Amino acid sequence: MTNQNRQSGKSASGKRNSKKRYVTYRRAPKKNSLQPQKAKESVRIAFLGGMNEIGKNMTLYEYGDDMFIVDCGLAFPDSDLPGVDLVIPDFTYVENNAGRIKGIIITHGHEDHIGGLAYLLKKVSIPIYATKLTIGLIRGKLEEHNLLNSAKLVEIKPRDNITLGNFNIEMIHVNHSIPDAVGLAIRCPAGTIIQTGDFKIDTTPVDGDMIDLPRFSEYGKRGVLALLSDSTNAERPGYTMSEKSVGESFELLFRKAKNKRIVVATFASNIHRVQQIIDVAQSRGRKVAVIGRSLENLVNVGSELGYLNIPSGILIDINLIRNYPDEKLVIITTGSQGEPMSALTKMAFGEHKKVYITPNDYVIISATPIPGNEKMVGNVVNELMKHGVEVIYERMYEVHVSGHACQEELKLMMGLVKPKFFIPVHGEQKHLQRHASLGMAMGIANENIYIGNIGDRIELSSDGIKQLESVPAGEIYVDGIGVGDVGNIVLNDRKRLSRDGIIIVVATIDSETGNVISGPDIVSRGFVYVKENEALMNSARDLACRVIDESYDSRYHDWNSVKTRLRDEISRMMYEKTKRSPMVLPILMEI
Amino acid sequence: MTNQNRQSGKSASGKRNSKKRYVTYRRAPKKNSLQPQKAKESVRIAFLGGMNEIGKNMTLYEYGDDMFIVDCGLAFPDSDLPGVDLVIPDFTYVENNAGRIKGIIITHGHEDHIGGLAYLLKKVSIPIYATKLTIGLIRGKLEEHNLLNSAKLVEIKPRDNITLGNFNIEMIHVNHSIPDAVGLAIRCPAGTIIQTGDFKIDTTPVDGDMIDLPRFSEYGKRGVLALLSDSTNAERPGYTMSEKSVGESFELLFRKAKNKRIVVATFASNIHRVQQIIDVAQSRGRKVAVIGRSLENLVNVGSELGYLNIPSGILIDINLIRNYPDEKLVIITTGSQGEPMSALTKMAFGEHKKVYITPNDYVIISATPIPGNEKMVGNVVNELMKHGVEVIYERMYEVHVSGHACQEELKLMMGLVKPKFFIPVHGEQKHLQRHASLGMAMGIANENIYIGNIGDRIELSSDGIKQLESVPAGEIYVDGIGVGDVGNIVLNDRKRLSRDGIIIVVATIDSETGNVISGPDIVSRGFVYVKENEALMNSARDLACRVIDESYDSRYHDWNSVKTRLRDEISRMMYEKTKRSPMVLPILMEI
Repeated sequence: MTNQNRQSGKSASGKRNSKKRYVTYRRAPKKNSLQPQKAKESVRIAFLGGMNEIGKNMTLYEYGDDMFIVDCGLAFPDSDLPGVDLVIPDFTYVENNAGRIKGIIITHGHEDHIGGLAYLLKKVSIPIYATKLTIGLIRGKLEEHNLLNSAKLVEIKPRDNITLGNFNIEMIHVNHSIPDAVGLAIRCPAGTIIQTGDFKIDTTPVDGDMIDLPRFSEYGKRGVLALLSDSTNAERPGYTMSEKSVGESFELLFRKAKNKRIVVATFASNIHRVQQIIDVAQSRGRKVAVIGRSLENLVNVGSELGYLNIPSGILIDINLIRNYPDEKLVIITTGSQGEPMSALTKMAFGEHKKVYITPNDYVIISATPIPGNEKMVGNVVNELMKHGVEVIYERMYEVHVSGHACQEELKLMMGLVKPKFFIPVHGEQKHLQRHASLGMAMGIANENIYIGNIGDRIELSSDGIKQLESVPAGEIYVDGIGVGDVGNIVLNDRKRLSRDGIIIVVATIDSETGNVISGPDIVSRGFVYVKENEALMNSARDLACRVIDESYDSRYHDWNSVKTRLRDEISRMMYEKTKRSPMVLPILMEI
Repeated sequence: MTNQNRQSGKSASGKRNSKKRYVTYRRAPKKNSLQPQKAKESVRIAFLGGMNEIGKNMTLYEYGDDMFIVDCGLAFPDSDLPGVDLVIPDFTYVENNAGRIKGIIITHGHEDHIGGLAYLLKKVSIPIYATKLTIGLIRGKLEEHNLLNSAKLVEIKPRDNITLGNFNIEMIHVNHSIPDAVGLAIRCPAGTIIQTGDFKIDTTPVDGDMIDLPRFSEYGKRGVLALLSDSTNAERPGYTMSEKSVGESFELLFRKAKNKRIVVATFASNIHRVQQIIDVAQSRGRKVAVIGRSLENLVNVGSELGYLNIPSGILIDINLIRNYPDEKLVIITTGSQGEPMSALTKMAFGEHKKVYITPNDYVIISATPIPGNEKMVGNVVNELMKHGVEVIYERMYEVHVSGHACQEELKLMMGLVKPKFFIPVHGEQKHLQRHASLGMAMGIANENIYIGNIGDRIELSSDGIKQLESVPAGEIYVDGIGVGDVGNIVLNDRKRLSRDGIIIVVATIDSETGNVISGPDIVSRGFVYVKENEALMNSARDLACRVIDESYDSRYHDWNSVKTRLRDEISRMMYEKTKRSPMVLPILMEI
């Protein structure tokens, strides 16, 4: 911390003049700031995802003409994006620079870091560098999209170095809620940048290796230009508990479950958690059945690649659970977030075809609800309890720990890396700002901390951080096989339709005379029970007749003005009579 | 607790034979259980709302031919009910027994206890009994619905007794997040039932009077047949903090805000909170402006009726805030739950017409997100922070306390009231069950605890609790001025429309020949950008042409089968080409 203060002090005093050329920011500044003469030895970073949002992480580094990418994730849509399946980053900037991009490094195998890859590879061909498990998971993704044959996948290990043009990147082992996660030390002539990736400090991780703090510390000693660090848990004080503590809770709870069947819901990607469940099941003589496509996939990939140690004979097929008594069974399932189509939700609502819940079940939800999912998880808990099931959820026992560093760990990382500049990433504004405060508490000067946004592109040198012109970035919606064909107009229509439904006014009209030949008919969906509202529908029909009669002028054949009047008058009438605002869609057929 | 054990012990031993006649339940039993010969001196309770749900509380008591109701609340719809404005209880049972209902007692003025009243009074005329502030708030509701003149409102005070047929009910003062809340001691020849209403135990409440524990205790000494108690916080250990502690936090934070303008968001109904904000503002020489219709209404009613003590000159009109420097201002606003149309949300997104947020604002969100609102609140916090605003939210300081009793308070209530039977109310299944566990921890026998559901009707005597045939109960949706005209079909249509939109296939057909005279036209909303998908729309049109040609048989004029085929084939084609399932609506006009 002393060094920290000295460093930033030096920067603030010795380079005061240069501050006019190299502006540093805590908040996103105006986009078109003056572009000074290009400085020597600077590195540029474009934030394509993961700033001011949780999910779809993607960062692009540039030095001279060389570029490479870190991560290419997806985000899951919230209720504000009805019908959207996934959200991916905008790849325009990557496409425009395809020839200069030397590779893409993936820090770990979570969806918010790998989920956009298949969509990216459909546009550009870039070699992918990742650790063994991450490659295994990416392989599955690419297979689904028929991209596996054309993709170039390069396996790397922690402490490996790879050279991408003028960049040299070292992988540094970190702890996270999935094995084989790495942080990066990115070196180029402008200096060293540490990007932590998602991490926590687990001194007793399930897979044996503590985060490689010595290596981070080594870089800190040599001098680090900038630190990009995971902000997910920047609001949480203290330390994240070790994953091992969850295993201890499982031991306790498996004893308390006595002769009941045990059902554990967890994130499909948490191999450590699955390992611990299997270990405790083994020690208590229970068989394990796995349910949910993503979990089954993880167990396959994890055991194939040696990341899961599964005692022989312990895994049984879900179709065979009826051959075992309850006290000899553990079922591991998806659905820890109360997702409507997940296995646990189906069990709770009695809709699962293979698992029937009874009062002899003991359910452990080994997860914390992600913000926005609290109510769905609560519904599942309520339904299970109505079956007489004992449910362990939320903070009743230590059945879940986060995979992300809390405040003390974040500060420890800064203390070891001792960066000149600090860029909190991977978080919403509140996380980024809280993380920035931690940086200041660690002695990093306010002006050396940069809070950005997606689309921001900065130039970084020991002189400072300069905001460059921003690049295209945003949310591309994937709906079915359509990528980007659902935008605000379509979404606004969907939201409007969901509030008060639609009324269609359709008539066939003689285009010469303007006489109505057939109709007008009034058809509605999502508005009212039509059978109980015949009078309302009839008065809409009468109004439509009158409007067409009055507003059609055979001299102009101006159907649009007839339609506009139809829409306005029917809307007004419906609002007056029902205080609702359905979408009104007039269709006039001419003959 | 000793007495407790003795009581239930006696019941378990001395009345073992009678258990065949009077079954007691922990979970909802089969509905059509044997109905034994009617016992003497029993009281019946019908749960019309508030069981297995948070909101729309409504309980109906019956003794002989006399009935009365406690509370008549509403619930707010979740995202599963698109377009629905409010949810109210099903009043069928009340309407069917209108002549026997002597009155309705309202325990306090929150929406989940008074919000259904206006809809009830449109169907039946029942005198309303409530305390002064509650009457004041009800008055406002009834005025909006033009019901004030026809309604009979009777003001009551704590320790008042009212007689409704064979019932005698005493009001007992309780603490809650709104003044003038009462619990009830309901006496009839079958015994005494205590219904706590919403309560907490606040030894230092803002309005001066601690909950009337002596009175609850007095009833406990005399013998209580059953306790119906508030389960909202049954999952939370310990005690709820005193409302006064929030005032102390305000004092600290107002100092920390220094020269900034202070904006405090809070629940519109929390008079105590508003009082404390005003008090601290006064002590620091700041003026107070109130924004948000419901808050303004509360301040009017509260000060008019003497529940708010407003120093003269401290309140200023929101339009005059520009006349005061930031350091002399406090703005109290609605929107503490991040509601999209609320004042705070509009401020955060720069859409408020009267309040412009700047980095010189200091925002305190004096509330905890209700489950389901976490993400909306988070969005508002993020937006405010992007403006450079310092935001105090969630558990950063003690800026909010609950109005509901936590576990130790709930146990204390049971320990004083010493009921023979215990019925946890006002909660989801998980709350009811946790509350039941607390009851067992307090020595109430498992078989003397009843967990019910809405629609359940029970008969209660010292012999036990008997389940009677259930009564109509459920959710009636209010959408605009329509009450109950939006049901599952309409809602399912709305949800479907919101996912993938709608495609309308319209054609005018010669009913003699089956020839298409005009069209078919394909119109879509909420599906895809039509301009970018002309080919798709054209192939849909071609398919529609073919289907109509092929499937119309002039012998039968069977338009329905043509429509069905159109719907099926267009749906199939769209799913194949887009992996989406829009609603397909064929409209055939005959001439």
